[in-house]
Amino acid sequence: MNDARRYCPLPSPFAMKRGGDLRGAHVAYETWGELSGARDNAVLILTGLSPSAHATSSADDPAPGWWEAMIGPGKAIDTQRWFVICVNSLGSDKGSTCPASIDPATGEAYRLSFPELALEDVANAAHIAVTSLGIERLACLIGCSMGGMSALAYMLLHPGSVRTHISVDTAPQAQPFAIAIRSLQREAIRLDPHWNEGHYDNTRYPDTGMSIARKLGVITYRSAMEWNGRFARIRLDAEERDEGPFGREFEVESYLEGHAQRFVRNFDPNSYLYLSRASDWFDIAEYGHGSVLEGLKLIHIEQAMVIGVSTDILFPLEQQEQIAEGLRAAGAAVEFVALNSPQGHDAFLVDIDNYSRAIGGFLNRL
Amino acid sequence: MNDARRYCPLPSPFAMKRGGDLRGAHVAYETWGELSGARDNAVLILTGLSPSAHATSSADDPAPGWWEAMIGPGKAIDTQRWFVICVNSLGSDKGSTCPASIDPATGEAYRLSFPELALEDVANAAHIAVTSLGIERLACLIGCSMGGMSALAYMLLHPGSVRTHISVDTAPQAQPFAIAIRSLQREAIRLDPHWNEGHYDNTRYPDTGMSIARKLGVITYRSAMEWNGRFARIRLDAEERDEGPFGREFEVESYLEGHAQRFVRNFDPNSYLYLSRASDWFDIAEYGHGSVLEGLKLIHIEQAMVIGVSTDILFPLEQQEQIAEGLRAAGAAVEFVALNSPQGHDAFLVDIDNYSRAIGGFLNRL
Repeated sequence: MNDARRYCPLPSPFAMKRGGDLRGAHVAYETWGELSGARDNAVLILTGLSPSAHATSSADDPAPGWWEAMIGPGKAIDTQRWFVICVNSLGSDKGSTCPASIDPATGEAYRLSFPELALEDVANAAHIAVTSLGIERLACLIGCSMGGMSALAYMLLHPGSVRTHISVDTAPQAQPFAIAIRSLQREAIRLDPHWNEGHYDNTRYPDTGMSIARKLGVITYRSAMEWNGRFARIRLDAEERDEGPFGREFEVESYLEGHAQRFVRNFDPNSYLYLSRASDWFDIAEYGHGSVLEGLKLIHIEQAMVIGVSTDILFPLEQQEQIAEGLRAAGAAVEFVALNSPQGHDAFLVDIDNYSRAIGGFLNRL
Repeated sequence: MNDARRYCPLPSPFAMKRGGDLRGAHVAYETWGELSGARDNAVLILTGLSPSAHATSSADDPAPGWWEAMIGPGKAIDTQRWFVICVNSLGSDKGSTCPASIDPATGEAYRLSFPELALEDVANAAHIAVTSLGIERLACLIGCSMGGMSALAYMLLHPGSVRTHISVDTAPQAQPFAIAIRSLQREAIRLDPHWNEGHYDNTRYPDTGMSIARKLGVITYRSAMEWNGRFARIRLDAEERDEGPFGREFEVESYLEGHAQRFVRNFDPNSYLYLSRASDWFDIAEYGHGSVLEGLKLIHIEQAMVIGVSTDILFPLEQQEQIAEGLRAAGAAVEFVALNSPQGHDAFLVDIDNYSRAIGGFLNRL
């Protein structure tokens, strides 16, 4: 278990974008396939808020990864051809230094003394992991959801480090609807008395806040259209309903509860707050004198594929179009793929047929 | 203040759809304009979850009503021609008998001993208020949001009581996305320790749960498109930000907080839970052997206008189309109005130009 996980130390101190630094920090990553002699076949994947670096299974860790259907021998991201790397975001508790890590200066967990985290820091840490493997230039950088924003930061801050890019269901800046959702998720956690300004433990843990945050997340990651077909107004059997007034009655409520139960104790609440806020802060327009387009025009790569879904309410298709337009204006050959998958933002994890065809097709043509 | 409010006693006992009954119950209502000698100019308005019967101002209560711009002399719902009635929903704490009312059997507030509430009960109570005014047949029944569902129940349960109907941003049945949102709102209230299984008071009150519920409501009542133009990524001034980690920073967060502050202590939490769940339960297909269309075909009226908004994520346009189709199949002359207002579900309260034109036009042609 976790035999596949590797760790890359970060320079100490590691300076953070918004001030402060980390000492003795590291990021976790996994790799699949073999790096070619010319070191020109590396594909880096940057993840959404909650996934670990375990994107797919391997001999060292046979547990299914979060993008198992997409990555492997003969799959869309073919590990017989590509040397695939997935880095766990700095600030995530899935192996990288995060608010739950011990601060070497105090011997205690950072909690809220962790410095403010930006996706630019996530990108810089991932870039250090890639260069530590002797890779100067990625054949392709793939970013999904929050990882797509980290990927834009990566390409902007490290010119020449990326040849091609696949942008998946993401945004060049956080818009107010997404900010509102994430702000409310954070508030649900912060208002849980067990959060206790970040000083929870296993006996007093903000289960309630985390559960509400996760359910709200799941609601915005999927789509009404999918649920009409999947759940309609199906009721739970009597023995599946919970007791007490206003308890679960419809199947959709049970589905949300299942998602919450699996998440609540499996993600550090403070790390969640830091990564969530980093997403709100991201705005490529900061680099373009207030213009998203001008910010994107600072990114110089050869080719890109930008994929989005019409049913995504968190990262709407218009934002994918903006990314495609900006990268094209910067000189890249850009393919824009607008899908009608019913699954909403999560389509990249579910509609494997369409995403495989697009991503596999792009990579095969390189 | 509230000099305009009237009360209509309900028969005692008043039997509820799902079992149980109320004794000595009443609903609050207001009226504007004058009933004609032929009693054929009455327009009834059934409201969304939270508004009171005070839909517009009058000499007796000059405070602006919740649909002030729409109702009055010379306005779209013209009180010089129509005798306008707005009934506060049974179960709402704005004057009607609700879970916060005293149960005459015990001398204490009902709280969770209030019988299960269905929108059919809301419709039946409103119908009693209308007949108590000597009105056998409404010239027009207008239902907005949850009130649109109550209106469908009213027409179905009281054949011949309605001549024409205006359906505004509503649904013939609750779909899983809307159920998920409302279920999460209820959960936020129920998980607040101060809710205390319904036994809160002013010193221990579920402010946190109500605040989260209201913010989630506001997010789903508006639209991402509107907020991109209205809030974009505008930051609050330093003195407007709240202190402490992860506090409000963006204007959209302050907007949500303002909405929550105005709501939290102005709506009884138990009443909110009852009305919210009644919305989830509503399903006209129950009357149509499982078919929404067959349920709607049981409603026999002369004319209808069905209005919906493309940006409404809570009551999507497809559901308005279903209502139009069903009423048409039942023999009514139906006008379907699909608006592109950017304000989402709340457009009927904000986009007065378009709603006035549609509703005023329909009523003027009667």
